[in-house]
Amino acid sequence: MERVTSLEDLPLRTNLHGLTPYGAPQLHVPVALNVNENTHPIPEAVARDILAGLAEAIRTVNRYPDREFTALREALARYLGEGLTAENIWAANGSNEVLQQVLQAFGGPGRSLLGFAPTYSMYSILASGTDTTWIAGARDADYELSPATAVSEITRTKPDIVFLCSPNNPTGTPLSLETIAAAYDATDGIVVVDEAYAEFAPVGTPSALTLLPGRERLLVSRTMSKAFAFAGARVGYLAADPAVTDALRLVRLPYHLSALTQAAANAALAHSVEMLAMVDDIRGQRDRLVVELAGLGYTPHRSWSNFVLFGGVADPHETFEALLAEGILIRDVGIAHHLRVTAGTEQETTLFLDAIARRGRSGGSGQIAPAQAE
Amino acid sequence: MERVTSLEDLPLRTNLHGLTPYGAPQLHVPVALNVNENTHPIPEAVARDILAGLAEAIRTVNRYPDREFTALREALARYLGEGLTAENIWAANGSNEVLQQVLQAFGGPGRSLLGFAPTYSMYSILASGTDTTWIAGARDADYELSPATAVSEITRTKPDIVFLCSPNNPTGTPLSLETIAAAYDATDGIVVVDEAYAEFAPVGTPSALTLLPGRERLLVSRTMSKAFAFAGARVGYLAADPAVTDALRLVRLPYHLSALTQAAANAALAHSVEMLAMVDDIRGQRDRLVVELAGLGYTPHRSWSNFVLFGGVADPHETFEALLAEGILIRDVGIAHHLRVTAGTEQETTLFLDAIARRGRSGGSGQIAPAQAE
Repeated sequence: MERVTSLEDLPLRTNLHGLTPYGAPQLHVPVALNVNENTHPIPEAVARDILAGLAEAIRTVNRYPDREFTALREALARYLGEGLTAENIWAANGSNEVLQQVLQAFGGPGRSLLGFAPTYSMYSILASGTDTTWIAGARDADYELSPATAVSEITRTKPDIVFLCSPNNPTGTPLSLETIAAAYDATDGIVVVDEAYAEFAPVGTPSALTLLPGRERLLVSRTMSKAFAFAGARVGYLAADPAVTDALRLVRLPYHLSALTQAAANAALAHSVEMLAMVDDIRGQRDRLVVELAGLGYTPHRSWSNFVLFGGVADPHETFEALLAEGILIRDVGIAHHLRVTAGTEQETTLFLDAIARRGRSGGSGQIAPAQAE
Repeated sequence: MERVTSLEDLPLRTNLHGLTPYGAPQLHVPVALNVNENTHPIPEAVARDILAGLAEAIRTVNRYPDREFTALREALARYLGEGLTAENIWAANGSNEVLQQVLQAFGGPGRSLLGFAPTYSMYSILASGTDTTWIAGARDADYELSPATAVSEITRTKPDIVFLCSPNNPTGTPLSLETIAAAYDATDGIVVVDEAYAEFAPVGTPSALTLLPGRERLLVSRTMSKAFAFAGARVGYLAADPAVTDALRLVRLPYHLSALTQAAANAALAHSVEMLAMVDDIRGQRDRLVVELAGLGYTPHRSWSNFVLFGGVADPHETFEALLAEGILIRDVGIAHHLRVTAGTEQETTLFLDAIARRGRSGGSGQIAPAQAE
């Protein structure tokens, strides 16, 4: 009989034993509202320009790409504004890689990373992958994070790095600039504000980018995955003091950003107005989710992102499976009696709301008949 | 006066202090023969198909890419042959990332990586970046590596991981399957054969892929950067026991391969015959470099790659600069009295050989007049 090798037969790194890979299900369903993608395809005219940029890049794809991705850093600086220049900008294959590079530069064995749980599930995985000790700090009620609580947790745990997710994933909770400034003042370490969903905040809300001047240990990370509808292209980035980008050059793999990635991102950024045109619509669907889920007896949490976490779910697993059976995929993020749903197009949002309404108030098992629930 | 932050002002990881980033110069010169690229652009017809694949991918670029890159793994398995299937294949953004993931899975604090110096300069950088102890083992004369020497170094240093570069970079030296098999038998650890340049070996040379059956700790890494003229697209991969790819799933960042990368690589692999059409030509130019450099009084080393390392250079820095002044960029790899040059197109190779011939025998400072040298 053929011998089959298993993970245990290999000299796997000790801290990986017994782990399973990160794995939000990738299912082909009509309504996928599980991983906070922008469900609007990019506009046809922008797609054409991106393709033209890619055609140009392919002509020299036999050569290594610009290791400094200078044009992309310039385009990202222009997009962010706030007086930032290319020297302030770093980018990588998704913000996960940006954050991994931050931990490679400033974390590692004997160093620690503080986040405020529940928060983005990749933080602890990235910490483990870089041998950085993960510390799960506490939040206030309703997943809020006040300056006092942030400072108290930092003072108590003395982390080398603090990750502040703003707005927080998976809860959607906004984070005030006061909390960020207080956290920064409470540590001599690196403070990263993860603004992956920043574009979905109310119009006019100041970003943590406004706090950068004079704070050389403050890093603000962003992504093109969400507001820019570019999850498939894998472009994350950050803004910080130029010394920080110098530090990241020490740990990045040479030529980490392909010529295709650079060309596609440059073309998309040249169309940022069109690319962001759907953000308003998504904000509207998010607010609709909050109102209508509350009307159905659930307890949605306030959200400045493109998703809504809602409590009051009797049996999240059952509701998840029931929706999936109707072709609607949402996310069980492991918080008791909660589920998370991405704000989709108006039609997708309607299909989700109709389906969950048919399940009756708070996902109960049918005491309320569908006709009454609608 | 404005305060300027420097790297020393940041809480940089201790083992990064004083380092400078990896940095082969990226200069725009007429003849770039410094980083072992394939200097032949990809064929027009193939470029069109790649672009068609990218156009299709852009239609859904708002969604995350296939995290398992299944179609790409299938295409790579078909390309490699040897009875391999998608379950044997892993890929990442360049073989640097593949090797980094191997170290994340099997290396780390308290573990060590043995390579045989001089070898690919990224190995020690990847070790440092993953807190794996780097051990520089010795080679035989002329940079060869016999089974006895490999086994002796492994027995002496007891590494957790062995990297065998075949053919070796920057020397071009072939590595026998006997050495690989002996190295494997001498350790209980992971053995990686880096076959980045394998396609440039003499036709019919068996790859280390033929050693995979029954060797679950053997990994063979490849890249599309060289023979496939795809350096700008960043596609590295490896073949190994399926348990190894399971281990790599524990450390890879989710969605690490963009939808654009997957689409471009799939299209290129569908045209592997056309993509590899220039390999024969490059082999010819490499052999020509060896013959003509020897004729000029240099001591080229035998090479199964797309580059030639040659000794007998009186002052490598001076020769490097003199060639650069003529628009020809080659590589000073830090080996005394040696330089390395990539085999380019026939015209590029001619320009390099003419320029170095004009410098006289062994790069001397002009005792032999240009007319005599030619």
